[in-house]
Amino acid sequence: MSRKRVVVLGGGAAARMVGGMLKADASVDLVGFTDANPARHGQTLCELPILGSDDMLPELRRRGISHAVIAAGEPRLRKRLAAFLREHDFELANVIHPHAFLAPEVQLGSGIIVLPGAVLMDNPLIGDNVFIGQAVSIGHDVVIGRDCLVGGRSAIGADVFVGEAALIGWASIVGPRHRVGTGAVIASGANVMSDVPENAVAAGNPARVVRMREAT
Amino acid sequence: MSRKRVVVLGGGAAARMVGGMLKADASVDLVGFTDANPARHGQTLCELPILGSDDMLPELRRRGISHAVIAAGEPRLRKRLAAFLREHDFELANVIHPHAFLAPEVQLGSGIIVLPGAVLMDNPLIGDNVFIGQAVSIGHDVVIGRDCLVGGRSAIGADVFVGEAALIGWASIVGPRHRVGTGAVIASGANVMSDVPENAVAAGNPARVVRMREAT
Amino acid sequence: MSRKRVVVLGGGAAARMVGGMLKADASVDLVGFTDANPARHGQTLCELPILGSDDMLPELRRRGISHAVIAAGEPRLRKRLAAFLREHDFELANVIHPHAFLAPEVQLGSGIIVLPGAVLMDNPLIGDNVFIGQAVSIGHDVVIGRDCLVGGRSAIGADVFVGEAALIGWASIVGPRHRVGTGAVIASGANVMSDVPENAVAAGNPARVVRMREAT
Repeated sequence: MSRKRVVVLGGGAAARMVGGMLKADASVDLVGFTDANPARHGQTLCELPILGSDDMLPELRRRGISHAVIAAGEPRLRKRLAAFLREHDFELANVIHPHAFLAPEVQLGSGIIVLPGAVLMDNPLIGDNVFIGQAVSIGHDVVIGRDCLVGGRSAIGADVFVGEAALIGWASIVGPRHRVGTGAVIASGANVMSDVPENAVAAGNPARVVRMREAT
Repeated sequence: MSRKRVVVLGGGAAARMVGGMLKADASVDLVGFTDANPARHGQTLCELPILGSDDMLPELRRRGISHAVIAAGEPRLRKRLAAFLREHDFELANVIHPHAFLAPEVQLGSGIIVLPGAVLMDNPLIGDNVFIGQAVSIGHDVVIGRDCLVGGRSAIGADVFVGEAALIGWASIVGPRHRVGTGAVIASGANVMSDVPENAVAAGNPARVVRMREAT
Repeated sequence: MSRKRVVVLGGGAAARMVGGMLKADASVDLVGFTDANPARHGQTLCELPILGSDDMLPELRRRGISHAVIAAGEPRLRKRLAAFLREHDFELANVIHPHAFLAPEVQLGSGIIVLPGAVLMDNPLIGDNVFIGQAVSIGHDVVIGRDCLVGGRSAIGADVFVGEAALIGWASIVGPRHRVGTGAVIASGANVMSDVPENAVAAGNPARVVRMREAT
């Protein structure tokens, strides 16, 4: 069976982690990376080339690279890059680390990254292009909207709903049954004990809205 | 060898998780569920019937169903159901997910549920009918009293003592060497840095007593 | 191949955990423990003798015991014992639990203990004689100085720098890119959202400096 040919968008630490996971996947032929920073072009990562900027993605698609993975954290950047990739007829590949635990009933979209130590209980619905960091816990019946970053060691309680392109910070907590609105940001170590509005930035224990972001 | 015949008390998400774990256990013949909600009777869960209300448990015992598991979170409900089951000569079965880590020296009672990702270090003593959620950490030499709910992603430090029928909330922390009294409730994301009295409800970082529950 | 002959410094719960891990390692011949408490001398732990006080370590070295592991938590004690061991020509052995996940690119010094459930992402640098507790998360590109205690269930974000002999408390959080100074103490459940100076004690969410320790 022929292997999927995959390009990773990004050239930093997240790309290095995702690249390592893809290289260990026998069904994948990882061809290299694209990165916005011209200083990185021609360098290597995971012993593979950083090929150029994202501008060369259409050309890579024409050469038969059918799949892409977005190795960026910021949700609005993830969203923009996903739209660009869809426009150019790429499919988003899933990258699930073997040291993560996903209950059999987890429903995954495409373009999802799951790092080691994550535990996803049964029946959650994870939208397209979501990045789930190391040692994240996701309770049963959680819904995570597309393009989110679920930061490492965060804990999303059962029956939580997270809107699109939200950023759940490092080691933060969302209590069971709460809602986190589209585009919201939960600060590192925050403890969400009530609903968080769209585009709000919440911090502290209990988490309070400390400012609002511009809507996109 | 004949398999244990088991019924699960509950028809919600916890029952679905416990049912899935029991179906994967070759030593168990799961016969179905009982649930207080009549609207669920006759429905199926994990492709097995929700047989009726808890009132039919004595009849199930007479038909040779020897073991039961309580798939409810609330500790006082767990306690009441366990007393009812003992009265009707049921044994409580343990349900330990293979993706949990229990040190070899862990001492377990009966009727204990442990979800994926939990880590129990050496020498704790876990009482009967305790529900340990996903990705819980329990340090060495911890004692957990019977009928407790240890909520998902909570962290119970070394040498902690937790009384009976306490509720340790989602992603909460109990610092090493503290005591949590019988019937106490630790809120989601709380950080316990001092002893918590019996039947107290504690929240925040550091956790403070915010109200008292009625003793039972 | 001949096995490493190893002695463990300590006779309490940490020694019991480390001893259990070493006994399961086929490349190790664990000869016993030393402990400062004379009441423990002649007792057994993990079915092996507590041989005497640390004063007998030079004699053990002459008898061909080449390796040692420090089963103490307090960083300044770890530091002092490591200096004593080096002076007497011991090598420090690593003790990594098989239920921990270390990315292939983790760089480890010697004398490092890693307990079950820990997740170390790629490219961290862990100094000599560091004790990493159960279910700890360490992000990419983290640097941990020698002699630290990284307490159980703590979460050290990406690109964090921790100085020597710091104590990261139970279930505490250090947000990405912050610095924790040499000799600092992070309290149980604290959430570090800014740099912590040398020898400072920080607590709360967000963590604030609550007092200073004497420098050593």
